[in-house]
Amino acid sequence: MSNPLHSLFLGPKGENEQILKELLDSALETHLRWRRSNHPEDPSPIASRESPAPAERAELRRHFASLLEQLQGSVPFFSGRYNGHMLSEQTIAGQAAYFAAMLYNPNNVSGEVAPVTTRLEEEVAHLLAEMIGYDPMRCWGHLTSGGTIANFEALWIARNVFYHPVAASLAARSLGVDVSVSLPDGSVAMLSQLNLWQLLNIRPACSLDLWEKLWLAAPRPALESALKSRSLATLGYQDYNRQLAAEFGDPLPPGVVLASGTAHYSWAKIVAALGVGSNQLVFVPVEPECRMDPDALWREIESLTSRRIPIMACVSTCGTTEQGAVDDLQRIVDVRARAERELGVTFHIHSDACYGGYAASLTRAPDGSRLTAAGVREICGGAHWPTDQWTRSVSALERADSVSIDPHKLGYVPYPAGAFLLKDRRGRELVATDPPYLALTTSRENGDAPVIGRFIFEGSKPGASAAATWLSHKTIPLNSAGHGRIIASTLRAARDLYALFGSADFSPYRVVRLPEPDLNIVCFLLHHPSLGTLSELNALNEMIYRELSPDAEMSAPYMITRTRLTSPAYDGAIGPLLLSLGKDGESYQESIAEGLTVLRATVMNPFSVDASPDYLLGLVDAVRRAAMSFLGGPASPVRRHRLRRATCHAQ
Amino acid sequence: MSNPLHSLFLGPKGENEQILKELLDSALETHLRWRRSNHPEDPSPIASRESPAPAERAELRRHFASLLEQLQGSVPFFSGRYNGHMLSEQTIAGQAAYFAAMLYNPNNVSGEVAPVTTRLEEEVAHLLAEMIGYDPMRCWGHLTSGGTIANFEALWIARNVFYHPVAASLAARSLGVDVSVSLPDGSVAMLSQLNLWQLLNIRPACSLDLWEKLWLAAPRPALESALKSRSLATLGYQDYNRQLAAEFGDPLPPGVVLASGTAHYSWAKIVAALGVGSNQLVFVPVEPECRMDPDALWREIESLTSRRIPIMACVSTCGTTEQGAVDDLQRIVDVRARAERELGVTFHIHSDACYGGYAASLTRAPDGSRLTAAGVREICGGAHWPTDQWTRSVSALERADSVSIDPHKLGYVPYPAGAFLLKDRRGRELVATDPPYLALTTSRENGDAPVIGRFIFEGSKPGASAAATWLSHKTIPLNSAGHGRIIASTLRAARDLYALFGSADFSPYRVVRLPEPDLNIVCFLLHHPSLGTLSELNALNEMIYRELSPDAEMSAPYMITRTRLTSPAYDGAIGPLLLSLGKDGESYQESIAEGLTVLRATVMNPFSVDASPDYLLGLVDAVRRAAMSFLGGPASPVRRHRLRRATCHAQ
Repeated sequence: MSNPLHSLFLGPKGENEQILKELLDSALETHLRWRRSNHPEDPSPIASRESPAPAERAELRRHFASLLEQLQGSVPFFSGRYNGHMLSEQTIAGQAAYFAAMLYNPNNVSGEVAPVTTRLEEEVAHLLAEMIGYDPMRCWGHLTSGGTIANFEALWIARNVFYHPVAASLAARSLGVDVSVSLPDGSVAMLSQLNLWQLLNIRPACSLDLWEKLWLAAPRPALESALKSRSLATLGYQDYNRQLAAEFGDPLPPGVVLASGTAHYSWAKIVAALGVGSNQLVFVPVEPECRMDPDALWREIESLTSRRIPIMACVSTCGTTEQGAVDDLQRIVDVRARAERELGVTFHIHSDACYGGYAASLTRAPDGSRLTAAGVREICGGAHWPTDQWTRSVSALERADSVSIDPHKLGYVPYPAGAFLLKDRRGRELVATDPPYLALTTSRENGDAPVIGRFIFEGSKPGASAAATWLSHKTIPLNSAGHGRIIASTLRAARDLYALFGSADFSPYRVVRLPEPDLNIVCFLLHHPSLGTLSELNALNEMIYRELSPDAEMSAPYMITRTRLTSPAYDGAIGPLLLSLGKDGESYQESIAEGLTVLRATVMNPFSVDASPDYLLGLVDAVRRAAMSFLGGPASPVRRHRLRRATCHAQ
Repeated sequence: MSNPLHSLFLGPKGENEQILKELLDSALETHLRWRRSNHPEDPSPIASRESPAPAERAELRRHFASLLEQLQGSVPFFSGRYNGHMLSEQTIAGQAAYFAAMLYNPNNVSGEVAPVTTRLEEEVAHLLAEMIGYDPMRCWGHLTSGGTIANFEALWIARNVFYHPVAASLAARSLGVDVSVSLPDGSVAMLSQLNLWQLLNIRPACSLDLWEKLWLAAPRPALESALKSRSLATLGYQDYNRQLAAEFGDPLPPGVVLASGTAHYSWAKIVAALGVGSNQLVFVPVEPECRMDPDALWREIESLTSRRIPIMACVSTCGTTEQGAVDDLQRIVDVRARAERELGVTFHIHSDACYGGYAASLTRAPDGSRLTAAGVREICGGAHWPTDQWTRSVSALERADSVSIDPHKLGYVPYPAGAFLLKDRRGRELVATDPPYLALTTSRENGDAPVIGRFIFEGSKPGASAAATWLSHKTIPLNSAGHGRIIASTLRAARDLYALFGSADFSPYRVVRLPEPDLNIVCFLLHHPSLGTLSELNALNEMIYRELSPDAEMSAPYMITRTRLTSPAYDGAIGPLLLSLGKDGESYQESIAEGLTVLRATVMNPFSVDASPDYLLGLVDAVRRAAMSFLGGPASPVRRHRLRRATCHAQ
């Protein structure tokens, strides 16, 4: 069947080179015309008879040729044979637009230096907001260098909103004013009456309302200064703690961040760097599917509350990096609602949808309405999948307080392109910094161009990235008829691969799979009855990984990757896997602390599902061959020796 | 005179389009060949007779045409008429290499997904290290999305190194071991004997030595765990503070970060986000040249020491964003040496050389040796400049503990490209995080490719940026015969512009200039005898700025920008400026709190100095015309009205 989306990627053999060339040529021509139309009366600074500096040009050509030669050693992400990390083909739109805008080199820190691409960035934020269901008029969004920075921003803003009521309370007291506050259980109280515990349990939107109420109650400059001087951002943690102890008698234990054991490793970095401390990253157990367990979340909230430990934020994941697991966000939001009602406790919910966020395009009809689970299944061609829970989980992104989502992953645009979306745009004001040299007031007609740099972690940033994301999403709309079709095809391919691993004959090995994939990542491992220890099991799978990973000659017939499921974070997923190994699995349990290596195939090539030869069959066969190559009979000296070496490596 | 470097930029009229096209074509051809040589036996997934999806292609063409049309509204940074922000022409090498590598879309988080470009990134770090004088074998460096993230990393690492001796002391005590430590005054003591104040005053290198000494004294796993559990990164500030209070009786006041008032606005954001607190950003007064005053720094250190306030880091700037001022880093390092000797106090010195770092290329001879100040003057063609102090200051970058430097500024490569350099690579281990799904152990022959992502703030990052920076620096070497010539020409142009503003007749206005530029940024303001208040003075200059800033039609004949010198941070620079205005200036002093607007011209176009017509004369004339357009006689109603309106805007 002909797939029109196939014409929007370069193609594994460069089948669509013609249109890419056409676009690149027109980008360069237009750019040159633009340059020449700018003060055409100015003479060229380059004398027309000037020698073209042959020595310098020769150097440029020589080094460029060397670069091109070196680049031949790159990993062939474009190929259906690559199913490793979250990299694949890029859209022609993304490539061409990045190049086109790069020629103008706009800096999206501010409209003053990027009048065009800052507007495109705003439009991208709107498109993403519409896809996930945020109100574009109330939210704020922008591009980042990647998901890690977007996640950094989420916790940065969440923390400022979390502590804001404390500053508000102290500021109000100093100004002799008082205002009402909505509490999480629905009651209303006066700000002055709240103790520290209550102040740290105000809903994000109510925390920001508080600000507006205080504006009405007190003169603005005095209020601004009173708030600022009492904020954590100004005082820093050390003085802030002293202030809390002095004002409230007890600063309470540090606020924690809840995340599932499957959360991206960047969260450990983020809590450490922001001064929250990695001890305060509390891992919620996972279900066998590697999703956060909502019941365990409830129990954790109860336990924290009983110890008077406030919760700053909860990070839910839509598409874990390792397994593509999609948390049941709807239930997580419901757990928070219950905590608000029953415990008077609340917190910011962030969805780390860096990988899986684009799955929301599958739930969005071309007219903008939300599809039912049955409608999603119809598009995917699955009788029983995606499940009702899946559609509910993805649709619930609109209920998160913030979302990070990476166009450079399942958005199929070139690096760098992450994105951060904040449901309530007022939150950005709490982290604003004013660059003195950028025009914040009207700069002629361009004055309404946004100064993105005020509210973000980064400073200078490529407008080309905004152009690439914009064009890609305009060309392939973020709905079930556009981008959703690509996502659907990779979901289908992943399920096909999953089924193939389930039915293929690997004897004397046995293939053990994680539960059915939520997105397009398939995790599995191979087991052999002779493997006496968990280390040997891990070593076998590390060896297979090494056979099927990039080397200098890219000689592996297929490429996948692997990850280590660590304990105790992943116990909820490792347990059932080992159980399925029977007696062997039981004995492995003893050394669970070393974690479990699983092989991992990310199936996101837009051509995979329609490909011939069938790359999925080929991949299964390649895994089998790699495994078989270690067998000279299960107890052969060669094999033992290899396994031992690999065991040393893997530890 | 023919300038060979002219052939390495596209040129204001696209004079060098031919070679750019040639490189782009060969990049695409090579890439297509590479794709086709990868498993040529695989059939194409795109049926050869498949329709090229005319509707989808039409959409792609339509939106692309719209993008190109919109991009025409970009700011003409390439033009000699643009002297606004720190943006200019990019090297052809940078443009072509970015495009070439982008086709392969490598992710420099790890060699596993970017075997080629991670090595190029390492090479770029070496080239930059050699330029500033770091030992490439002892330092560590990498690219970032920009200077802000590089600065974030500097303080992130500095803080971890700063608090490391405290964790080491507590860990050693718990393990029952003791080691010797070098103190800043040169004496040696046993770790167990040090009080908190002394632990917070260990030189960065000695702090890291401590780690190695402890490795020898205690079993490694026990030590690692003891250190980790006592680190700020693990505990977070709140529990850390309690621990300090419990162990040492007094946690001491929070550690501060010293910076001059001219430091980049990102520093306020960084100390706030990292939990240090903006109160702990202590501004050191500046000299009239907007450089940090080393004597004031000494007094500040004395004062902090007398109050037992520890110093985490001092941020010196090489090329302030607003004026291009180059701190006398040599003297700053000397002040620290004196503080170590006389006060027993020390701290990390970071040079924020995001803008000015490439000036170091001027001090480096092609054979790698360091040029004398006289040698630098010879290259610049200046009889008395750059001064001895200038060369000493730039050469002193090698004495800073870390340096941030932006290839996307004076490196003339496309966004995004910042860089971070750390003198003692061991420091990165204190912030390392291991991604479980990236291969840290040998992954076949590519196993030695670096896992950059372990040690950095970001995660995924474009390998294309490394390729662009690499090719640019290979083609235009970072020495006085290569990149230094471009820097020299822009320095010369800026001094010419400075002189023109000094000699031109602006009557009835008067031009007041900041002191001679250290780099290629010229700051000045216009004064008119009728301006009764500082607000009116500021409003006049804001109006001139608005006339000479980009609008929707880009109709301004020349483009500059402006900044607001705030008080008290800039008092050391504002004072002399106002003084030079005589009686008017004295009266303005009263409202100094509102700051002083100065016009700002960044002269970094590589063609500027050789240009004809003389863009510098043109710029001076454009400023004069803009100012004159407000005059219908100094007291004309039109002018008064305009000024009042502008005054409202400016406030």
